[in-house]
Amino acid sequence: MSVRVGVLGATGAVGQRLIQLLDPHPEFEIAALTASESSAGKTYREAAKWRVDAPIPTDVAEIEVGATKPEAVPDDVDLIFSSLPSSVGQQVEPEFCEAGYVVSSNSSNGRMDEDVPLTIPEVNADHVDLIEVQRDERGWDGALLKNPNCSTITMVPALEALDRAFDLTDVRVSTLQAVSGAGYSGVSSMEIIDNAIPHIGGEEQKMETESRKLLGSFDGAEVQLHDMDVAASCNRIPTLDGHLENVWADTAEDVSAEDAAEAMEAVTGVDLHSSPDQLIKVFEEPDRPQPRLDRNTEGGMGVAVGGFRETTDGVQFNCLAHNTMRGAAGASILNGELLNKRGYL
Amino acid sequence: MSVRVGVLGATGAVGQRLIQLLDPHPEFEIAALTASESSAGKTYREAAKWRVDAPIPTDVAEIEVGATKPEAVPDDVDLIFSSLPSSVGQQVEPEFCEAGYVVSSNSSNGRMDEDVPLTIPEVNADHVDLIEVQRDERGWDGALLKNPNCSTITMVPALEALDRAFDLTDVRVSTLQAVSGAGYSGVSSMEIIDNAIPHIGGEEQKMETESRKLLGSFDGAEVQLHDMDVAASCNRIPTLDGHLENVWADTAEDVSAEDAAEAMEAVTGVDLHSSPDQLIKVFEEPDRPQPRLDRNTEGGMGVAVGGFRETTDGVQFNCLAHNTMRGAAGASILNGELLNKRGYL
Amino acid sequence: MSVRVGVLGATGAVGQRLIQLLDPHPEFEIAALTASESSAGKTYREAAKWRVDAPIPTDVAEIEVGATKPEAVPDDVDLIFSSLPSSVGQQVEPEFCEAGYVVSSNSSNGRMDEDVPLTIPEVNADHVDLIEVQRDERGWDGALLKNPNCSTITMVPALEALDRAFDLTDVRVSTLQAVSGAGYSGVSSMEIIDNAIPHIGGEEQKMETESRKLLGSFDGAEVQLHDMDVAASCNRIPTLDGHLENVWADTAEDVSAEDAAEAMEAVTGVDLHSSPDQLIKVFEEPDRPQPRLDRNTEGGMGVAVGGFRETTDGVQFNCLAHNTMRGAAGASILNGELLNKRGYL
Amino acid sequence: MSVRVGVLGATGAVGQRLIQLLDPHPEFEIAALTASESSAGKTYREAAKWRVDAPIPTDVAEIEVGATKPEAVPDDVDLIFSSLPSSVGQQVEPEFCEAGYVVSSNSSNGRMDEDVPLTIPEVNADHVDLIEVQRDERGWDGALLKNPNCSTITMVPALEALDRAFDLTDVRVSTLQAVSGAGYSGVSSMEIIDNAIPHIGGEEQKMETESRKLLGSFDGAEVQLHDMDVAASCNRIPTLDGHLENVWADTAEDVSAEDAAEAMEAVTGVDLHSSPDQLIKVFEEPDRPQPRLDRNTEGGMGVAVGGFRETTDGVQFNCLAHNTMRGAAGASILNGELLNKRGYL
Repeated sequence: MSVRVGVLGATGAVGQRLIQLLDPHPEFEIAALTASESSAGKTYREAAKWRVDAPIPTDVAEIEVGATKPEAVPDDVDLIFSSLPSSVGQQVEPEFCEAGYVVSSNSSNGRMDEDVPLTIPEVNADHVDLIEVQRDERGWDGALLKNPNCSTITMVPALEALDRAFDLTDVRVSTLQAVSGAGYSGVSSMEIIDNAIPHIGGEEQKMETESRKLLGSFDGAEVQLHDMDVAASCNRIPTLDGHLENVWADTAEDVSAEDAAEAMEAVTGVDLHSSPDQLIKVFEEPDRPQPRLDRNTEGGMGVAVGGFRETTDGVQFNCLAHNTMRGAAGASILNGELLNKRGYL
Repeated sequence: MSVRVGVLGATGAVGQRLIQLLDPHPEFEIAALTASESSAGKTYREAAKWRVDAPIPTDVAEIEVGATKPEAVPDDVDLIFSSLPSSVGQQVEPEFCEAGYVVSSNSSNGRMDEDVPLTIPEVNADHVDLIEVQRDERGWDGALLKNPNCSTITMVPALEALDRAFDLTDVRVSTLQAVSGAGYSGVSSMEIIDNAIPHIGGEEQKMETESRKLLGSFDGAEVQLHDMDVAASCNRIPTLDGHLENVWADTAEDVSAEDAAEAMEAVTGVDLHSSPDQLIKVFEEPDRPQPRLDRNTEGGMGVAVGGFRETTDGVQFNCLAHNTMRGAAGASILNGELLNKRGYL
Repeated sequence: MSVRVGVLGATGAVGQRLIQLLDPHPEFEIAALTASESSAGKTYREAAKWRVDAPIPTDVAEIEVGATKPEAVPDDVDLIFSSLPSSVGQQVEPEFCEAGYVVSSNSSNGRMDEDVPLTIPEVNADHVDLIEVQRDERGWDGALLKNPNCSTITMVPALEALDRAFDLTDVRVSTLQAVSGAGYSGVSSMEIIDNAIPHIGGEEQKMETESRKLLGSFDGAEVQLHDMDVAASCNRIPTLDGHLENVWADTAEDVSAEDAAEAMEAVTGVDLHSSPDQLIKVFEEPDRPQPRLDRNTEGGMGVAVGGFRETTDGVQFNCLAHNTMRGAAGASILNGELLNKRGYL
Repeated sequence: MSVRVGVLGATGAVGQRLIQLLDPHPEFEIAALTASESSAGKTYREAAKWRVDAPIPTDVAEIEVGATKPEAVPDDVDLIFSSLPSSVGQQVEPEFCEAGYVVSSNSSNGRMDEDVPLTIPEVNADHVDLIEVQRDERGWDGALLKNPNCSTITMVPALEALDRAFDLTDVRVSTLQAVSGAGYSGVSSMEIIDNAIPHIGGEEQKMETESRKLLGSFDGAEVQLHDMDVAASCNRIPTLDGHLENVWADTAEDVSAEDAAEAMEAVTGVDLHSSPDQLIKVFEEPDRPQPRLDRNTEGGMGVAVGGFRETTDGVQFNCLAHNTMRGAAGASILNGELLNKRGYL
């Protein structure tokens, strides 16, 4: 039997991807959509300016959009996907949790809170049980689970493979991020045509802290951050989808280029609907992965890597993931599948 | 009195920039242009598909293009600017030097040869005297001087400022390079629209070796490479001009973000026509420098930096220069001015 | 002695171009800047996110921005340049005129009003005297003068040359318009990368009506619209600046490709500071004009044409102008110069 | 039983699309691939720099590429798809036909020859029987069938619907064409970033003549060209795939915007594998079709139209098709299916 789900912030760029992925999903059934006050009362077709390059699902198009508050969502909805601006998420997500809803959230607010699990199911599924601590502390019937920022997700599966085998000490990462990561009105065409912007507000801090929480250890009571040192430099470039990243990973153990590629290639998916069989695709061609050619690896849920070179202190490589699929909407849905499987709904 | 100059490879992207800069130059007078056999005998207007966004200089347009060999260049030409594919440069540049011409070359062949000076006048003008060694060893009346690769030039002035004050130990650099760096037919539009390419053949090695030669010490007999460790990751992105680079510079001495910015801001130009008063422009806005907005800093001969952050081992920052001006044509001309001033013509 | 001028909507894309052009202008002196309520009280540097690829003029940067209402502008200001959203312009421009200010406006509101002159000085400077009628009817001490839409301005100088010599009957025009025409937040990068949009709301109607008013005749009392039939199709493409247009002009008299080019080449500028010596530059190369290469013709105040072909009913050709210079900010300033020369200030 | 097919020019942009479409095709089986002499003897994987955003078919990847001459193709190959530069096609296609092969060609040579059928199966399938005349005149066992240029194909299905119902008299068309139409090395990134090029050599003539042949009548002996007047203006813009066109269609009969849309919407596909159920998709949103959002209509084999407006003499509208699918590779394959069905193999 399907789980009835709601989507908060359903008209935005990530919201549209959520709809695209949820419509044919075998476990979930879309039962409620919310957006800002100005959209409430309209059909989804009217409220959303649909820009995904596949047609708008016809049955979803006729759903009436509600305001983003618990009262606007039916009681029989079991799971909420949230893709709200962080300032809005910070306020309304706790209201939904308090009202008993389980929320799988892509919004950046609260990701580093001590009692909020931050998970990529293939990397740290065990952290989901931090929900027990959260419920104790906050007295919620519902729960709040976060997925990381899109630029963090892109590199962490590869880093986890290296850390397990060779023990990470330092990471430097330079990103070439697509405009869709900022949402529809995030990057003006006047800013980015024939240009690149070497700064994305708050993004470097997210990569530097979230990656240490994801690779941290959970003892049933708290998550101990990984002690590696992470330094990020984030750039916006004129690509539509797909974040490309150059990584230098320094390791305690010796690692060759071949070792590193093998460790990544061996990573499998997990037993959840949206997790690919092989999580990380390794390219031998030195000029791959490329955003346009490789962002749809494994239906947009895979990570592509290449360009391995041994360095004095470890290895350097490139990685790529689809930022609104694996990096946002798909990440939240995968977390929803994890919540379902672990019996949190 | 003007120095009569010739340009080898005058029809290419860098060749056109050389023409644009030489035409109004107070010290130099264009006396000969060469290109491939198929262009020889045509006027420059016919041979070059002029694509600079300023009109073709009318007097230069009527010059007859010659073949790229010493016989095609008048004897009273004193200085040759070379912007040839490296495979061609490797063969014909020595022929010109042997025939008595002094060559200021942008081509990549021979840059790391022990008796070939590689200079940025503001950084290591003293290396030019390696020409004495070169003439002794090769028995040339002429001489061969190189400027570095465009991606190397972009970061080295900033690195030199840090090294002088804080002693560099390790450098990691990730580049976001413009398509003009590959010449007119270098990057197909089908490759780069909505895309980035995380590999530029040979570019990483150039940055890793040339930077150590530029910051090396010259004792009158040989250049001792700097012992810092440099690791580069090079990317092509959909920008027209201007290479942007993310740099992590680890230093032996402690350095704060403010220290680093001040050290760079203090760098002045040298007493040569094409050297700007202030070599390095420091931006305080975190999202600058940007290729389209800042590539023409100091008429394209300046370097722009910003985004300073202190790291565990040093400092990270971004730098930008116009790759066909400061990074290629302007670099060769500046080296030509140095040769003229030092009496090598 | 300079005329003291104010700029309404000074922080937008056209507003920034106005500042860039007015700062060094020999006749005008910037005395007041206005913007939306949220910017009032800030310095211009704080209020405007300056994105022109030349530095912000230092003295202008420190001017305090006022709200967009007559009380916020000093009485000794003689001329107002307005670049407001049309809904705002419709409301406040009459207030300024009533308060005695003469307004040269780029905003689209009111352009087709019977008593509002719509002028391109090189085309129909005589229409400016419609101000007499306007003052009579509206009882204003001030006055309101409009320049046309950027896409209209691009084609009208060429059309006027053809009409004078060969008598226009029908015009079809297809546009390839740059994103800056929509302002900073007008076109999202998610909409336009690897894309084109075959519709710009209201733009086709503007081209179809404004062109007939510009080429219409003024008898001292009213402007009789030209009776030609104009049909436009407007497209947004991923270029930054410069509108390119394909035009089919049907004429009553026979016209060859050469005739048409000659008629355009003969058009001179007028005796105003911002009007170029030669208004229309004719290219013989069939692949010119191109937006990036030719938008700065005559400092952005020229029109470039090419690609002439004779058709069954007339001639087809391409034309190009810089949409924020000749097509907007420069157009308003040129109209301001006309108002000054004709003694309307 | 499958038809064994060969592909001439298999490594180019259209060649790769042919491979992508033929590999899963139910009627055809790839038996031979040819390319230039320099590729002969290599596997397809080595010879082709595969750039389609789907993996290279594994079995095709290992086929050995032959030279482009009849001897290099096995005798049991029944059908040849040709996507050669026209200068090469002009020479070798007749050699293949003389050697008994039936050739479905995308190359532009010979399209207007009197005894060469030029077909779009949904528009003028009956013209295929011109092959009888061709065989008589040229004494071939094989045959040569052409599909039109990509920019012609984009507009002709819509024009045919209008002509049938309202009788076309004049057509003006302005194109916004994607870079893939020129092949991998056709448009340099230095030419097209932040730019548009208002000329594509020979393209206007192709649209003006081919469209009249396609809509012409065939009486069993010759094709009488349609007597409408067609004038085209062709532009290259920075899009990857998908040609967008603005059309003015003048008609003898009165036509409203609704009439025109209905006439197009009624066009069905034909009974061939690659022909879509509905050939022309009509959009009501005025800003559609757009290249990136709509080029994959009906798997890239549909045509999308919109933006209907009544004009004085007829109707104006926009149309869009995927230039390397419906406009090239898919067009040739559809013609191959027609040849198979009509018994010409």
